[in-house]
Amino acid sequence: KRSYTITLLPGDGIGPEVISVAKDVLLLTGSIEGIKYEFQEKLLGGAALDATGVPLPEDTLSVAKQSDAVLLGAIGGYKWDKNEKHLKPETGLLQLRAGLEVFANLRPATVFPQLVDASTLRREIAEGVDLMVVRELTGGIYFGKPRGFGTNENGEETGYNTEIYAAHEIDRIARFAFEVARKRRGKLCSVDKANVLEASMFWRKRVLAFTQEYPDVELSHMYVDNAAMQLIRNPKQFDTIVTNNIFGDILSDEASMITGSIGMLPSASLGDSGPGLFEPIHGSAPDIAGQDKANPFATVLSAAMLLRYGLGEDKAAERIEKAVMETLNRGFRTADIYSSGTKLVGCKQLGEEILKSV
Amino acid sequence: KRSYTITLLPGDGIGPEVISVAKDVLLLTGSIEGIKYEFQEKLLGGAALDATGVPLPEDTLSVAKQSDAVLLGAIGGYKWDKNEKHLKPETGLLQLRAGLEVFANLRPATVFPQLVDASTLRREIAEGVDLMVVRELTGGIYFGKPRGFGTNENGEETGYNTEIYAAHEIDRIARFAFEVARKRRGKLCSVDKANVLEASMFWRKRVLAFTQEYPDVELSHMYVDNAAMQLIRNPKQFDTIVTNNIFGDILSDEASMITGSIGMLPSASLGDSGPGLFEPIHGSAPDIAGQDKANPFATVLSAAMLLRYGLGEDKAAERIEKAVMETLNRGFRTADIYSSGTKLVGCKQLGEEILKSV
Ligand SMILES: CC(C)[C@H](C(=O)O)[C@@H](O)C(=O)O
Ligand SMILES: CC(C)[C@H](C(=O)O)[C@@H](O)C(=O)O
Repeated sequence: KRSYTITLLPGDGIGPEVISVAKDVLLLTGSIEGIKYEFQEKLLGGAALDATGVPLPEDTLSVAKQSDAVLLGAIGGYKWDKNEKHLKPETGLLQLRAGLEVFANLRPATVFPQLVDASTLRREIAEGVDLMVVRELTGGIYFGKPRGFGTNENGEETGYNTEIYAAHEIDRIARFAFEVARKRRGKLCSVDKANVLEASMFWRKRVLAFTQEYPDVELSHMYVDNAAMQLIRNPKQFDTIVTNNIFGDILSDEASMITGSIGMLPSASLGDSGPGLFEPIHGSAPDIAGQDKANPFATVLSAAMLLRYGLGEDKAAERIEKAVMETLNRGFRTADIYSSGTKLVGCKQLGEEILKSV
Repeated sequence: KRSYTITLLPGDGIGPEVISVAKDVLLLTGSIEGIKYEFQEKLLGGAALDATGVPLPEDTLSVAKQSDAVLLGAIGGYKWDKNEKHLKPETGLLQLRAGLEVFANLRPATVFPQLVDASTLRREIAEGVDLMVVRELTGGIYFGKPRGFGTNENGEETGYNTEIYAAHEIDRIARFAFEVARKRRGKLCSVDKANVLEASMFWRKRVLAFTQEYPDVELSHMYVDNAAMQLIRNPKQFDTIVTNNIFGDILSDEASMITGSIGMLPSASLGDSGPGLFEPIHGSAPDIAGQDKANPFATVLSAAMLLRYGLGEDKAAERIEKAVMETLNRGFRTADIYSSGTKLVGCKQLGEEILKSV
């Protein structure tokens, strides 16, 4: 029997509710597929701040590092919004990403046929959208130094950050993205702002150097402002997108909203070795926390990504994905994706319906 | 008779075609409203590179500075795409913005009722969208130093830029945006990434300080990734958006695509004193350059913004805007906005139809 240790980081807001569903789904599929799990639940974000005074306790990071994969709910909330930088829940998440060295963030944006009318885009534009954003996750302006607050030559206060990429940081995310594109439809679009930024010019140059190694992948380049437009004009033109940390933050959220199903979308963050980090792309939704209204699908699908990309357990991953599709086909919906003619249920009941479909 | 000098910068691609139409429209409305113009046509971008070896000749900048307003067509094209930074058409545009000190870029995103079906968003989402992006234009990562290519402590090559804002840069764009919001529907949304970036934390703090001065304006804050989503989910929630240079680049293009009418959208870039810079938001479209296919509406509407914001000639501005609406109502369309039942015309003929409607 294969056996894995999984770190669970429920986090804040609706995090605990959706993680609880995903855990049950992992356990049931595991028992069918002959996989054993040992779960360790740890604190991150606001929950960690309240309990320990820091957003990423050492204990959380070291347990996470030693496990086979990490499943995260969501972090953040109004309560900690005004905290200083080092005491923000978000800082804990950034420290976790850096600590696990998960430089490649995979964010699929897929339109579920059952939910196409939830998109604000016209049906013929949204239908069939299936793209993957590969976002660089541990570099760029998120981590670049120098950063902070200062005084300029006129004695004026300033705030500043540094967008910086070293060769190996671009190379490893580029290679990762070429591999992803190769397994998808063979099209890779690298997004930058090389008409203005040196960091982007360097990015483009390094990405270009991979074309010989991947002659089967069709590489194109697009400026970030144009990409923001093209995602709306014709999202189906995209297969795989690779971009830096901040552009990836913006474009992957934009792409997810195009699908109309942001409560459905998982993500995976991977490094060269060590455990991957898997989380829904949605936030902690503090307004509905604890009300049994959260949509657990995205976290359940993140668990499927954990199985496929984190543990190489493709069969169990497929079993989960099929169960999600079947639950959708059986008409069960949480409030965020409800439409007339479907069955409105809470987070817990949806979890039970997914288990029935497993 | 009021008299103004206007610098015309046709630029590249379709630039000359659309500028020629806008010039005719200015002349005709001027003769009706008692306004005299002296036009000076100068080189910028690729056209300037080819003729003089630099993308912004000194002569262009000094003439522009001495004029009452500057009307720009578009710059750039495949031909110069691989040029080094200081020889890119885009660099000429950035130098012009900096040289004119036009720190406030106004980008309206308006859905024209006649063109609502050109939006890829569902009719009920797109209909009635009317928002204004106020983008900081002469600071941030576009101009921040240090920037360039270097070597890090491991001897590895790097590319880097600096996102930096000084107090007065934020204050002047914030005040500008509050004034704009006050004249619109009184709602201002400041977009940043204050959960991660110090430059954004400083931005938010300075913007917040204006609330006492503008108690009548309802201020909110939004993270840039969320803003990219909300623009698609429900663009009508926005009235005025204020943001930094790079986020404004991305979000204003996204917002314009939502309207489905990017060939219709003008922009104005203004400073504290000196001439404003007015230009369509679309690019130089090298693929259709010289083929009489370009849509001149956005440049004509930029001329209207020039009259209103640049010269304080509101009546002439309104006359142009009405002529545009009437031309649309009479069914004339260029290819980019054509739909069955309307009349397809070229750039020149559309110009003549606008003149008839003036
Ligand atoms: C919470 C925040 C720090 C984070 C980010 O910007 O990376 C989030 O927006 C995301 O995309 O995962
Ligand atoms: C051409 C380019 C330098 C420019 C910018 O990024 O500002 C353009 O995208 C714009 O938005 O006007």
